[in-house]
Order: sequence, then C-alpha cells, then structure tokens
Amino acid sequence: MTSQAALDKFYTVIPAGGVGTRLWPLSRASAPKFLHDLTGAGTTLIRGTYERLAPLTGSRVMVVTGESHREAVRAQIPELNTEDLVLESEPKDSGAAIGLAAAILHRRDPEIIMGSFAADQVIAPVDVFQQAVREAVAAAATGKIVTIGITPTHASTGFGYIRRGAALQLEGAPIQDAPHAHEVVEFVEKPSQELAEQYVASADYLWNAGMFVAPVALLLEHLARAEPELHAGLTEIAAAWGTEQQAEVTARVWPQLPKIAIDYAVAEPAAAAGDVAVIPGTFTWDDVGDFAAIARLNPAREQESMTVLGEKARVYSDQSSGVVVSDTQRLVALIGVENIVVVDTPDALLVTTTDHAQSVKQAVEALKAHGESDVL
Amino acid sequence: MTSQAALDKFYTVIPAGGVGTRLWPLSRASAPKFLHDLTGAGTTLIRGTYERLAPLTGSRVMVVTGESHREAVRAQIPELNTEDLVLESEPKDSGAAIGLAAAILHRRDPEIIMGSFAADQVIAPVDVFQQAVREAVAAAATGKIVTIGITPTHASTGFGYIRRGAALQLEGAPIQDAPHAHEVVEFVEKPSQELAEQYVASADYLWNAGMFVAPVALLLEHLARAEPELHAGLTEIAAAWGTEQQAEVTARVWPQLPKIAIDYAVAEPAAAAGDVAVIPGTFTWDDVGDFAAIARLNPAREQESMTVLGEKARVYSDQSSGVVVSDTQRLVALIGVENIVVVDTPDALLVTTTDHAQSVKQAVEALKAHGESDVL
Repeated sequence: MTSQAALDKFYTVIPAGGVGTRLWPLSRASAPKFLHDLTGAGTTLIRGTYERLAPLTGSRVMVVTGESHREAVRAQIPELNTEDLVLESEPKDSGAAIGLAAAILHRRDPEIIMGSFAADQVIAPVDVFQQAVREAVAAAATGKIVTIGITPTHASTGFGYIRRGAALQLEGAPIQDAPHAHEVVEFVEKPSQELAEQYVASADYLWNAGMFVAPVALLLEHLARAEPELHAGLTEIAAAWGTEQQAEVTARVWPQLPKIAIDYAVAEPAAAAGDVAVIPGTFTWDDVGDFAAIARLNPAREQESMTVLGEKARVYSDQSSGVVVSDTQRLVALIGVENIVVVDTPDALLVTTTDHAQSVKQAVEALKAHGESDVL
Repeated sequence: MTSQAALDKFYTVIPAGGVGTRLWPLSRASAPKFLHDLTGAGTTLIRGTYERLAPLTGSRVMVVTGESHREAVRAQIPELNTEDLVLESEPKDSGAAIGLAAAILHRRDPEIIMGSFAADQVIAPVDVFQQAVREAVAAAATGKIVTIGITPTHASTGFGYIRRGAALQLEGAPIQDAPHAHEVVEFVEKPSQELAEQYVASADYLWNAGMFVAPVALLLEHLARAEPELHAGLTEIAAAWGTEQQAEVTARVWPQLPKIAIDYAVAEPAAAAGDVAVIPGTFTWDDVGDFAAIARLNPAREQESMTVLGEKARVYSDQSSGVVVSDTQRLVALIGVENIVVVDTPDALLVTTTDHAQSVKQAVEALKAHGESDVL
C-alpha cells in the first residue's frame, strides 16, 4: 500500500473521557479537562486535538465521549458528522471506548487504519507531530499496531514507558515512509526514580502517551484474543449501530462490558506477540496532568511572575509567583505567596502550591467522601 | 463629686469610622470593619462595643458615623436614641468626629463626662475593662482628660505609647475611686523596635488605645486652644444641631473643617499642659488591625490548624494552616499552604499569608490607583 493509499484509509478517533480530577475545581464531571482552554491558546484542548489531526484525515474524525457532553462536543467540533459522535451511556474505560470505535469503523470498511489520540493533550510543533503520525500510518499499513512514543526530556516517574527494539523492516528493508519505526519489545509501568533514570540514559525507552495507530481489523483481532467478552459485546453493539436496534442493544450490552484500559486489552498482549511498533515523537508533549503543568505550559511574562488563565481574569499580584486560573470575574489579589496555585470558580475555590498540585486528586476524593459532590 | 455622681454624668461616644483597609476585601467602604463579626462571637464589633459600655451608661450612648452607615448602625444598635446618632456627610478624622460629639453634649449639659471608645476593638474580660472605665470617670471628674492605656504584652512597633508619671493625687492624696490613675508625661509615636523594647522594660509606658474619658468642657477648652478654627466650626454646628438650621449649617461648615486626629487636636497639647491622666488597662485588647489578628483572636481548635470565620463557610484543609474568612457559600479547598490567609467575598478574593497581613493596605491603594474601586 502506498503512503497516500494508507492515509486515505486513515481515520482519527478522539476518546474524550476522564474528568481530570487533579485539575479540580476547573475540571469536573460537568466540564471535564478537554472542554477547557488550559494553554491560553484560545481554544479548548479537544478543539486543539481536532485541528491537529483534521489536516491528515479531513472529515474522517470520530469522537467517543459521555452522553452528557454531546452538546459541548458538537459546539467545539461543529464539523463532526452525526454518525461520528459516539456517546457512552456510562464510562467503561479506554478498552471499550476505543474498541467500540474500531468495531463501528470495521463494519464501515475493514481496511480502515484508525489513530486514537486523547482529547486532552498539548502538543507542539504541530508539523512535527503530523509527520510522526504519517510515519505511524505508513508503519501500520504494513500490519502493525503503531504507537507514537515521546522522546523523554527527563526521568519522569509519572508516565509509563515503551521499550523499543530493532528498526522495523519490511522484506529486509526499512519501511520507506516510516524510516524511524522500531519494534516494541514491551510496555513498562510507571517506574521508580532509579529505573526512570536508567530508562532515560539507555535511549531505548520512550514515554507512553497513549497514541495508537492500527488497522482496525488487527486491533479487533488482538482484542478478541485478550478480551473475548469485551470483543463480543462491542461487536454486537457495532452491528446494531445506526439501526433501529441501537438503543435497545446498547442499553442491554454496554453496562455489562468489562472495564479495562486499552493498554491491557490490546497494546501489551499485541507487543508480546511482536505486533507493535513505535515511532519516536520528538515534539513537546504534555498531558496537562495538574496545575503545575499549567504553570509550565503558560510561562509568565518576563516582568511578572504570575501565570494567569481566564478570559475575564482580574489579578493583582505583589511579591507572588505561581498560577491563577479564573473562571469568574472576581478580582483576585495575591500578596507574598510563592508558587501559589489559585483556581477560582463560581462555586469552589482551590488554593494550593505547584508542589502540591498532585494532591488535588486526594482532596477531590475526600470531598466526595464528605458529600460535597455538588462542586465535583 | 462622688463616684456615682460622676457616673451619672457619664456619656459613651462611639466614633465608628475607618474602613479597616488592612481587612480588605472583607472590610470596605460599604461594609467597614466595625460592621463585621471578626471574633466569631456572633456579634459585630460595634455591637460588642455598645454592650461593653451600656451597663455603665445605660441609654446615654452616642454614635458618630458616616451617613451611608445610618441604617446599618440602627440595625446593630436599635436601642440608640435618634438624637444620639450623629452622621457625618464626609469623613473628617477623629478630631472633628469626637469634637462634634463633645460640642453637642456640652450644649445639652456642660457637666457631661464623655468617654470615647472606637467601634472596632476587641476587649476581654469585660468586667476588668468596665472597672478601668469607672476609674477613668472618677479621675476625669477631678478635672482631667483621662486615657486608658493598655499594659503592653510585647514590644509592639505598631502602636503609639503613653508615658506615665507620678500617681495622680487630689489635695495630696490618691483619688479614692481611681487608685491606679497616673499623670501622663507625654504621648509618643510608634517607636522603633529598639525603643519599643526599652519602653516595655521600663514599665512606665502603656499602649495608646485611643480611649479618652473627659469632661466635655475641658476637652472643648483644649480643642479651642489648639485648633480654634475646628472648635469654632464645631460650636456653630452644635448650636444648630436639632434645629431647622442643622442641614444648612452642617452642609456649609463641615466640609471646611480641618482634618486632624484627636491625638494632635487635644490629647498631646493637654498632656503638655499637665491635664492628662492614665488608667492602666490590664484587660486584653486588640484593634483587629489585620488578618493576622483574626487568626490570633480566633485560635484554631486543637485538632485543626485552620481558623475559619464565616457563617456559611465550607472549608476543606489538608497540610495547611492559617485563616479563612468566608463571606460566600463557596467551598474553599486548601492543600499544602502554611500560615495562609484566604478571604473569600462575592466580588473579590484575597490570598496572602499572616506574615504579609500588613501589606494588604498597599494592595488596596494599588487597586485604587488601577481604577478597581468597584471592589474597594
């Protein structure tokens, strides 16, 4: 298959799930992370994701999200075809979300190569990313599940890693349109600091950013092998999709599906079977995991030490540094607070520091336990 | 004059001015410090002031405040006689406020002994305070302007001091009902740290809490000598007070009056003339000057390290200490912030630390300069 022929079969899938608990109270069930502009770019993360991929796939874009986000996603991507908005009645983890997209696309055309890209990541420069995707599509067309691994910039213990093997070859030669493709030996979990340092030093390890490009037929084949129950359920739903039976079948089957991440349901078993390749991504990548990331992604201007996000933000800052995210028109005054994080929303206020940004998740869990779910 | 005869001539004056800028955004022009409950006692500071003094003066209480606070003060002290609510069309500092009260009372009865007590101080225990006031009234009845000076608990550089001299005597003997009265040698300004330490070590210095008990005739006599223009204006207004000319005379004269503190207009010149005495106050006293004072006055419960003020406050705190003042029903979550001060109001939010509590004043000035006066 030529490179262009492969690209013609390429379909973008954007799973838009996950609340982004560490970004509470900005992100919450009713307004998850992907619906916010966390970079000050003027667009939401899901819109940014769409705009990065549309030049490669045109109108061949599918979004999988929760039913409650139907209108918000439509508003963000008015270009989306009605049949390409796949709504989950309840969250079932990435295995079911991506698997359902694969099953629906497979019924449309079994030769489709799908690329799954999370809705809430920040990537730059776009052309470097797009070139990596093109290579991934070319490598996938040779019959591989292809991930794009991020070249690590530091020994992070917050990400899983991808261990790569030999350069990928086809009939004894490098793949012409995917010269950087390598075999994947294994996926490894979030490491200790010591292991992370070894990984980065070895140059054989890349960050797992959860980006997968694969022929839908091959993805479903591995899913059927590793998770036959999930595969059977998704196949039944996909068969009813777009017919009069869709609602009945989905309501009956979806709630029974096992909850499992796509990593366990497909990527790891496929890697063990020698069916996974990786393209190194040399672009900068951030999953905007917490408010420290927001400070990192939005450097304060030289004369100021506060990063401010929010269309109508009014911030007065004196002897202070950190980040203010404002979802209100209130005036926020900061005096003598260093590395502070202030997130101001109409019904909840968070004050923490960039060093404690990861602890927001526990706070949200504690609030839930205390019955404060009106603000979660 | 017997002690009871003096008390029968005693009239409480409560000057209720001053926004309490260091307590922004809780205190502000439209809702100054004295209209807040800053101690968690369940009453505003002005109500607390009234309740401390009413047992001594009964219905003989006068409040001097801004016109815009008429209804708020009425609501706080419904017991107040209509003719005892003196409203200023614009603030003219304590010299004019206290001087006008003295001039009005002097026309009613030139033998009145007035006691002036700011509306925004916190004092305990009340019976120790009342005993000091009784002594002050008895000493004033001998023809003195009497201040109650606070026995210092530390070398504060934030207060002015009163230097006392010999025990006050009447015809060669201590005053029977004011055994602790001493002459005042001088009032001294806020000192350096070094001087403050010397003052506290010497035991001859007390904090100036701005409490004055004096025969109105004597107070006006010193005012006439030190500030003849101010005295003349106040006399003209007092003559018209309660008549049909009140509005016209006040509107014409008040705006022209000089702005001067009662300390310079009366207390210091009177002390130089040997006419001032002091009663030591051994009660605890706080002028609630900033949010650090609020933390100090409202110690956190043993198991928690956050002081929380606010009827409807919802606070979640983890690895944090300090004070939260909530004027909203928003949930406030604090993670990993030590000695933090969070003041949450509907239109403005302050985040600082107890160490920076004094800097709030500069912030308010900067906000004013930036045209943010809608929240001031």
